[in-house]
Amino acid sequence: MATMSAGRKREISRREYNANLAGCPGHEVLVALSDKWLTLIVSALADGALRHSELARVVAGASQKMLTQTLRKLERDGLVVRTVTAAVPPRVDYELTALGHSLLPVQRAIKTWAETHIDAVHQARTRYDADRSSVPQGG
Amino acid sequence: MATMSAGRKREISRREYNANLAGCPGHEVLVALSDKWLTLIVSALADGALRHSELARVVAGASQKMLTQTLRKLERDGLVVRTVTAAVPPRVDYELTALGHSLLPVQRAIKTWAETHIDAVHQARTRYDADRSSVPQGG
Repeated sequence: MATMSAGRKREISRREYNANLAGCPGHEVLVALSDKWLTLIVSALADGALRHSELARVVAGASQKMLTQTLRKLERDGLVVRTVTAAVPPRVDYELTALGHSLLPVQRAIKTWAETHIDAVHQARTRYDADRSSVPQGG
Repeated sequence: MATMSAGRKREISRREYNANLAGCPGHEVLVALSDKWLTLIVSALADGALRHSELARVVAGASQKMLTQTLRKLERDGLVVRTVTAAVPPRVDYELTALGHSLLPVQRAIKTWAETHIDAVHQARTRYDADRSSVPQGG
């Protein structure tokens, strides 16, 4: 390996320090939030409460197990509140809390980025794949 | 299951439609972006290029395989550019593209949310766990 200058070593140490912040609770939340089903459920509840059965229909593609697990996680994190109403069978509603609502602008920022840059990403992929199919694979 | 009113059915259909947008390319990007290692690598490169060995040190916790896979994905998506300089051994640098840089404000928004609301999330978890340990588990 090439030797590093003292300045370069300091720079790397600084970034190591920043990356170590990844172990802090804020990052833990970030990782939890980057879950696909979590994102979809929060979006589905943006306009108000839904019953469990309605949520299962809206967030199509999530297995029953995944839906239940994600809802428990959201409830535990204080993002969603679950209300059981006595009936036969019991009625279960899910609704965003104020904390859950505070996530919506962040989700919109992500969505806007994706919508603005999707074409550039696809063009890059096409170029990348074309380059890889015309030259031998490097290390 | 309880019967739904016509209005409620329309409402559910509308949200089904919105959730189906989850299958669109924008969402595909969103899911790709919600990868933990991807987020950490983009952050690590925020202040300029790093060699592969430096990146491995900064993004501690990522296995060699995970690092390589994520870098390929970032390169393919046009977020990172990989430069090989002839030397023994060859020197490999990674740098954010303009597209990669455009992600940084979005990452900051996520980070700010996490930092602002981490206490509320932890309090909610403590409450949730305390409730679950004092009453029998429900369905």
